[in-house]
Amino acid sequence: MRVYLAGPDVFLPDPLSRAARLKLRCAAHGLVGVSPLDALADEPPHWSTLPEALRIARRNEAHIASCDVLLANLTPFRGASADVGTVFELGFMRALARPVFGWSNSATDFASRTRGLHAVTGAVDADGMLIEDFGLGDNLMIDGAIAASGGVFIRRDCVPDQIWSDISAFESCLAAIRRL
Amino acid sequence: MRVYLAGPDVFLPDPLSRAARLKLRCAAHGLVGVSPLDALADEPPHWSTLPEALRIARRNEAHIASCDVLLANLTPFRGASADVGTVFELGFMRALARPVFGWSNSATDFASRTRGLHAVTGAVDADGMLIEDFGLGDNLMIDGAIAASGGVFIRRDCVPDQIWSDISAFESCLAAIRRL
Repeated sequence: MRVYLAGPDVFLPDPLSRAARLKLRCAAHGLVGVSPLDALADEPPHWSTLPEALRIARRNEAHIASCDVLLANLTPFRGASADVGTVFELGFMRALARPVFGWSNSATDFASRTRGLHAVTGAVDADGMLIEDFGLGDNLMIDGAIAASGGVFIRRDCVPDQIWSDISAFESCLAAIRRL
Repeated sequence: MRVYLAGPDVFLPDPLSRAARLKLRCAAHGLVGVSPLDALADEPPHWSTLPEALRIARRNEAHIASCDVLLANLTPFRGASADVGTVFELGFMRALARPVFGWSNSATDFASRTRGLHAVTGAVDADGMLIEDFGLGDNLMIDGAIAASGGVFIRRDCVPDQIWSDISAFESCLAAIRRL
């Protein structure tokens, strides 16, 4: 089973060794991890004329479409929510009607994180905009898609300085994916 | 042509009148605006047993699938990027291979916004994570999907206190959608 490894992991200082580490753990579970950094075997020749960023986007979409499952690192990224690129990919796979899984190194619910980051105590922020508060891990489209697809969203706190290195929640997701 | 109106507009103080305003502008362009707040005509009866948040997520997915085009309010929301729920929906529609359009009341590029918000001057943030810097409006999956789908991403600055009320970029997108 091919598992697309979505996440802001691509922004880590050594993204290739991170990808290699995650793929090794996939292999230990009998799964094939596919990284956004992988070359695309059958990349259409005309993509070479695209600007680099747009070529990466097309390649990632093709990688996702080639996988059976998507597993997203939804650890909050520069704010209360997951990385938007990762969330785009989760939505993409959800529309393909395949299972989507998520993991996060924050056990705190989305509303509490939002209030904490933006110094809000009530129902709305400083712009008067509602704080979504359903006790979920992130925006309801994320938790909703994972639940509806048959996946799981595993959230747990870790040692603060290991937010981007602790992969125990990732491992738990792999065990769940193996049982699909 | 049915146009799904994605955006954090649902978090505004009066989301129903906002939706009505956007739909009126759609109608003026000969388009049918579909809001996440709309009732779903043929909602499966068993969804009534779902928790509210998950029912909203399913309903939004069904609304998107019923539309020909998605138009997303990608104005930065509580950070450098667009609202993640909106971006999920953009990815969902992109996987359905239909055109996706975006508008934003920030003309500043994504890297500059990220650096500004997180007081970063170099290539990486305080966690050592790379600042994506391709001169785009947001994460490359967003700009890439819009471009690849045949849509446009219209970004322009507005009067600061009109970030959530100025819809001139939205109007420009409607004109572009009408030409599809």
